[in-house]
Amino acid sequence: MSIITLTTDFGASDGYVGTMKGVILSIAPNVTLVDITHEIAPQHIRQAAYVLHAAASYFPHGTIHLAVVDPGVGSRRRALVVRTSRGFLVGPDNGLFTLLLADEPDAECRSITNPAFMLPHVSATFHGRDVFAPVAAHLARRLGHSVARRAERKASLTHDQETSRCNAAQDDVLELSEFGPRVSDPETLAIPKPIQQADGNWLGQVLFADHFGNLITSITADVLTNIGSAEILIGQTHITGIKRTFADAAPGELIALVGSSGHLEISIVNGNAAQSLDLGPDSSITLRKMQDT
Amino acid sequence: MSIITLTTDFGASDGYVGTMKGVILSIAPNVTLVDITHEIAPQHIRQAAYVLHAAASYFPHGTIHLAVVDPGVGSRRRALVVRTSRGFLVGPDNGLFTLLLADEPDAECRSITNPAFMLPHVSATFHGRDVFAPVAAHLARRLGHSVARRAERKASLTHDQETSRCNAAQDDVLELSEFGPRVSDPETLAIPKPIQQADGNWLGQVLFADHFGNLITSITADVLTNIGSAEILIGQTHITGIKRTFADAAPGELIALVGSSGHLEISIVNGNAAQSLDLGPDSSITLRKMQDT
Amino acid sequence: MSIITLTTDFGASDGYVGTMKGVILSIAPNVTLVDITHEIAPQHIRQAAYVLHAAASYFPHGTIHLAVVDPGVGSRRRALVVRTSRGFLVGPDNGLFTLLLADEPDAECRSITNPAFMLPHVSATFHGRDVFAPVAAHLARRLGHSVARRAERKASLTHDQETSRCNAAQDDVLELSEFGPRVSDPETLAIPKPIQQADGNWLGQVLFADHFGNLITSITADVLTNIGSAEILIGQTHITGIKRTFADAAPGELIALVGSSGHLEISIVNGNAAQSLDLGPDSSITLRKMQDT
Repeated sequence: MSIITLTTDFGASDGYVGTMKGVILSIAPNVTLVDITHEIAPQHIRQAAYVLHAAASYFPHGTIHLAVVDPGVGSRRRALVVRTSRGFLVGPDNGLFTLLLADEPDAECRSITNPAFMLPHVSATFHGRDVFAPVAAHLARRLGHSVARRAERKASLTHDQETSRCNAAQDDVLELSEFGPRVSDPETLAIPKPIQQADGNWLGQVLFADHFGNLITSITADVLTNIGSAEILIGQTHITGIKRTFADAAPGELIALVGSSGHLEISIVNGNAAQSLDLGPDSSITLRKMQDT
Repeated sequence: MSIITLTTDFGASDGYVGTMKGVILSIAPNVTLVDITHEIAPQHIRQAAYVLHAAASYFPHGTIHLAVVDPGVGSRRRALVVRTSRGFLVGPDNGLFTLLLADEPDAECRSITNPAFMLPHVSATFHGRDVFAPVAAHLARRLGHSVARRAERKASLTHDQETSRCNAAQDDVLELSEFGPRVSDPETLAIPKPIQQADGNWLGQVLFADHFGNLITSITADVLTNIGSAEILIGQTHITGIKRTFADAAPGELIALVGSSGHLEISIVNGNAAQSLDLGPDSSITLRKMQDT
Repeated sequence: MSIITLTTDFGASDGYVGTMKGVILSIAPNVTLVDITHEIAPQHIRQAAYVLHAAASYFPHGTIHLAVVDPGVGSRRRALVVRTSRGFLVGPDNGLFTLLLADEPDAECRSITNPAFMLPHVSATFHGRDVFAPVAAHLARRLGHSVARRAERKASLTHDQETSRCNAAQDDVLELSEFGPRVSDPETLAIPKPIQQADGNWLGQVLFADHFGNLITSITADVLTNIGSAEILIGQTHITGIKRTFADAAPGELIALVGSSGHLEISIVNGNAAQSLDLGPDSSITLRKMQDT
């Protein structure tokens, strides 16, 4: 039984996501559907790229990640199906998968052109329903078949083997070539990296704010390891030192810490840093090595 | 394994939807649950009718659609279970199913009166939990049984046959009469239709705004086909011509297009038309045939 | 197949919940996941305690309730796994389970200390992913095993027996001792109870407002039964009598009724009482016995 995850900017108030799930279950009734989020800010491909990247590595091998943030729907932008070392990706070719493909030189990218894997009528505005959902479902169904064929060869399955049915990505015989021609140049987003200045300071930026108002920045844990004790300048304020967790400071205190995705985050304990500081995506942040006095 | 979809105005912040799912899984543990939306505006039966109608046809045959937008809960309004040509509907008799039943002259509607299908204690304010969820679950369970009985008659199931297990609506032996007496006059909503004026123009209205701020109108694609080139008057602005998709116009541009449900929509590319125009449900829209000069 | 429910304050816009589900499905692929809510107000343990308590009793026996509202993450607060008479609880030891444990003198509480049930790297800020999700999944998997062992002893399963597979809580052989040492003093929240005044009136308070703006109060149905006809003072207004349901009053009318969780609620029919009265958690409410004149 395959897993299909869904990441979109469709929100929760319409039936768009439910419709995609109906399409999927019509083709692959035994699939397990998992929502990553449908609250990506409308058309914000970069936010989706980060959110999906942070979540994807926690899913079993063979998982199919379906992502639809698609301002170019109905234009000539390509539709992609991708096999990585860990599973599959399905979505528009607009950079959504930049982070997931960064470490995947051997990923197989295909442009979805075969109408056999789409709904009979493809609209100009909802390829999530008409192209991407059916492609993900057909992929899941084919994975199920190829896994089932291998399973039949074994006399009896132990429980652990059954669990490993999901580990299909690396050894299945599924051919992506049926979906369409190979793509060697998928679109990529510019991913902001922290830059070391002449004075040794690091200059980074806010990537996005999460639900709690934590400001997730482009500065990663490895930079912090090298710099040692640090002072942070952000907006009109500065923060001394990096905390280990929220409970190491008092409620209401402005702190910096390394968040669960390995990025430096600016937070207010039990508060909302994004709102209180009035900062958001692309706000700049400076990391300064503290003098040992 | 049956599918039950859920459409409500219960929102996401309480445990109301989770509670309904607990009731369902207590009765029918193997059912597949799919949320359509729980963000219908409170008590807006018409919005729910449209959202459910747009999604339902993309689900497999035999799907059970459970919908609870129920301002009359605890009053003498009837509770319905319905068999259509495509599956089943469960919810209050207040017009929620108007659009789904419009093309279903042979639908079998029953008033749910048999307490054997309800929770032992039925509250006066939460029939989603006490009546509709258990009815949907018992329906799913009975469908499973009748499908299983048919399956036993067959020596071995091929994969495709297994997939078609969901196609139970038309040929199962499930009797709805157990749930309660037949209803010949289910409540219906007035569904706004576009009206052609003496001057040949069409007058329609906004049905609702979706998550992106697209204004979904009562004007359907068939009207547009007949009228040819068109000009649209809405609020204080007018729009010339109908675009095929968002990417055919510049970001920020106000456009009209036929959306994925076959209705004319007013949109701002990468923007929010409902907010920018300050328009919403029941705003009027005029469609004028353009002179070929 | 076990059920794991999820209750958090993580919201819907990030991938935090999806990530937890990925962790769970990597360990226990056949589990059924059900969201109670992820919209608990950030760090509001009491709200989560009420919402989870209201929903939990509607789930099958053996259900695992995973709850993460965790302002003390990464501190020395304990992590709990609990066996109750109805199922299992997994989450931080901060009072989240106060209401669920109030009627469970024989509940077995364990502090999660065995790293074998955690992810290999445990972060300081996201134990939902690194501790609680894997513990819940390992629990589900072990429950599955112990159920399977019992099942093997039976020659053939009837359908009803299969359904009862979920009823594992009371009779399975799962040992919680592997997870860590016994806890005899789990943290508890102060739960506000209505207080009878010298003049016979009852003084209560608002616990929280639900999605519809209904103000759920600490006054329970049993108090109302004793008092008979009642008048309610809340904010600047008073309400005479208790309605049975919304439809017994006109749209826009301010009413009191006993809600679906057995608490007195203050509502505006088809409106939002919390917004209109500008009241919320901890607002006081007085219940006065009406004179029979």
